[in-house]
Amino acid sequence: MSGSTDEIENLIALMAKLPGLGPRSARRAVLHLIRKRALLLTPLADTMSQVAISARECLNCGNVGTSEICDICEDPKRATGELCVVEDVADLWAMERSGVFKGRYHVLGGTLSALDSVGPNELRIPRLLDRVISEDISEVIMALNATVDGQTTAHYIADQLQSQVRLTSLAQGVPIGGELDYLDDGTITAALRARKEI
Amino acid sequence: MSGSTDEIENLIALMAKLPGLGPRSARRAVLHLIRKRALLLTPLADTMSQVAISARECLNCGNVGTSEICDICEDPKRATGELCVVEDVADLWAMERSGVFKGRYHVLGGTLSALDSVGPNELRIPRLLDRVISEDISEVIMALNATVDGQTTAHYIADQLQSQVRLTSLAQGVPIGGELDYLDDGTITAALRARKEI
Repeated sequence: MSGSTDEIENLIALMAKLPGLGPRSARRAVLHLIRKRALLLTPLADTMSQVAISARECLNCGNVGTSEICDICEDPKRATGELCVVEDVADLWAMERSGVFKGRYHVLGGTLSALDSVGPNELRIPRLLDRVISEDISEVIMALNATVDGQTTAHYIADQLQSQVRLTSLAQGVPIGGELDYLDDGTITAALRARKEI
Repeated sequence: MSGSTDEIENLIALMAKLPGLGPRSARRAVLHLIRKRALLLTPLADTMSQVAISARECLNCGNVGTSEICDICEDPKRATGELCVVEDVADLWAMERSGVFKGRYHVLGGTLSALDSVGPNELRIPRLLDRVISEDISEVIMALNATVDGQTTAHYIADQLQSQVRLTSLAQGVPIGGELDYLDDGTITAALRARKEI
């Protein structure tokens, strides 16, 4: 035994399953929670119970929210004819934080991967093709990660949509605040090829 | 807005208050929880609620458990006359994992600190002095951290207990598997001073 009781051990074991927490940090987190019972542990337990009941994937775009159709898909102001395709919900949230995109999203739920045998039907690709027609989309913006699988998926989708809509992808180049010395060769090559007049 | 709803935002904000998680890793953890709702989110919410109700500090030693007197203090086999003094519950758990100490513990709840105005009465020091007499303790083992505050606290307690019991502290030296090249000068000095015949 480790000096704590079953319930607390159980909580530590569950916390250790979270991404970013190992057994040691899970223990530290649990002691912190017990110390801040009223301020943190109880509200966290309650909020988790609520989210466990209410969280669902938007039937339209795959975003996570608390209703069948998410706030973004419900908002008529966002029917701009632009659809931003992302790999997962974390990417959608990252785009939303920047606040610059005013259209709607489509969350694929991953990338095509021969190794993991993920084909188009395992992703939300058929639904994307439907939406392009039914929502009268004029531009599909590929905001997939700049990885091999991400780019393969972007090409596959581009093939499927060819000539139906305008297809664009996020620009590649030097990140804002980035130092050339710390960038990989591929990024520098991409930034040079896409150079712009000042 | 960030593309998620209030409840989920709320959960992210609470998770970000855990030690070891920032806003980004909290978001990642929440998405992971929502994906693994049945396997992780619901059990975690339930276990947290249970622990929020049942967790308490042992009235005797300060360990965290689910009863007024913790399992270690209740166990008559551990009344060995040895008392191990630690700063906090995480240290007690670390000692227990090693499995080598068979006596009981006393959790101070911190260290003396002039800067943070923590005096003996803010810690569990008066209770320690009582226990040494009431539990017929023959040896007090100081397992405080090798920091300035930890060592100051150890000296203060040693002063209070002088001549009543045998006072010992954990040995200092090279950690098992440690490489000299990576050790600080203080540790090497301590290890050399405490060198042993082979």
